[in-house]
Amino acid sequence: MIDDKALVVFSGGQDSTTCLFWAKREFREVYALSYRYGQKHQNEVDLARKIAEKADVPFEVMDIPLIGHLGRNSLTDTSIVMDQEVPERGLPNTFVPGRNMFFMSIAAVYARERGIRHLVTGVSQTDYSGYPDCRDAFVKSLNVTLNLAMDYQFVLHTPLMWIDKAQTWELADQLGVLDLVRNETLTCYNGIQGDGCGHCPSCKLRNDGLHKYLALKATREKLA
Amino acid sequence: MIDDKALVVFSGGQDSTTCLFWAKREFREVYALSYRYGQKHQNEVDLARKIAEKADVPFEVMDIPLIGHLGRNSLTDTSIVMDQEVPERGLPNTFVPGRNMFFMSIAAVYARERGIRHLVTGVSQTDYSGYPDCRDAFVKSLNVTLNLAMDYQFVLHTPLMWIDKAQTWELADQLGVLDLVRNETLTCYNGIQGDGCGHCPSCKLRNDGLHKYLALKATREKLA
Repeated sequence: MIDDKALVVFSGGQDSTTCLFWAKREFREVYALSYRYGQKHQNEVDLARKIAEKADVPFEVMDIPLIGHLGRNSLTDTSIVMDQEVPERGLPNTFVPGRNMFFMSIAAVYARERGIRHLVTGVSQTDYSGYPDCRDAFVKSLNVTLNLAMDYQFVLHTPLMWIDKAQTWELADQLGVLDLVRNETLTCYNGIQGDGCGHCPSCKLRNDGLHKYLALKATREKLA
Repeated sequence: MIDDKALVVFSGGQDSTTCLFWAKREFREVYALSYRYGQKHQNEVDLARKIAEKADVPFEVMDIPLIGHLGRNSLTDTSIVMDQEVPERGLPNTFVPGRNMFFMSIAAVYARERGIRHLVTGVSQTDYSGYPDCRDAFVKSLNVTLNLAMDYQFVLHTPLMWIDKAQTWELADQLGVLDLVRNETLTCYNGIQGDGCGHCPSCKLRNDGLHKYLALKATREKLA
């Protein structure tokens, strides 16, 4: 890469942790930025910090309570019971409107102040569960908007955009962090680290992908 | 217009006040949203509220201190002396990086929750003083990004984009609010309402435009 610094928008979940180690492979200097926005599971940030320490990456947390207040949703509002399945019509009620837009835009201002052009996010269109701000067209449009807004040449990286959860596990394995991602990240909507509660939509997606990848890996090893 | 509701991003300055009355002419229901983001002149919000009352428009203030903290600039940091002129190179130090992007994006989430598709902002490329987030290409790009981020058909309106300050005064006059805009708005970097301190860059731009328009108007009346 022309530049050697990248900022990872980092939640401590499976996807952004895989991205953190991907960025470490691709860039000489990597920084991690987390947000406290009123998410139900406050330990998310502590887990993220521990992972960043293990990765030996400078870590910062920014408080953006406004993002949790802007729209009613089940990730920040404990009075709403989360959808257990992706609804056939409309958006899941775990959708915080425009959340990734704010996460990326704030990260961009933060990065620009520090002379960092490369921004990394773990969004994926493959398993996007109906969240419009995980789609590739959105990220590309946002990249242009940010560059025009601040007269700066940001480059947004989305290493997971076109791979599914099984392939994300494969990437983690290639990066040598399969166990770390499996045991230390938090993806579960019910706030349980590692393999999680097992029955929320996020756990199902994650565990199905893991079993698929592990089965594939076992088959490959048998055939080798 | 297909829809009849619009939200104006409203600071109580000359430009957004003119836009507020423009919106009242164009839409059946108009709403005004102001921000408290750590600007030096806290009375800005009180003046904005008074103008909205006179315009008979529902008014809301949102606190977004983060925007003031993201980048160092002379509008929110009293330890920085503001540039008296637009620098020949680089951005003026009154530039809050990405400010309009956050103002518009937050307004978009707010509007969507209320079923409002039309957003109005007073940015202008003509007198843009080097702020990249006042340019037309930025606003058009942001419009696409917002629509992709939230799966919603926002329409961003920029009635002042291609007119200069004299023409903005002319628009206010056509809307019947020349005196109101002249006397009750705050544009001055030194926090002085109406005609302002007279010597900051913002006052110079505003007053030059006013004198140009009033001279033009007098000439027109003489010739009529």
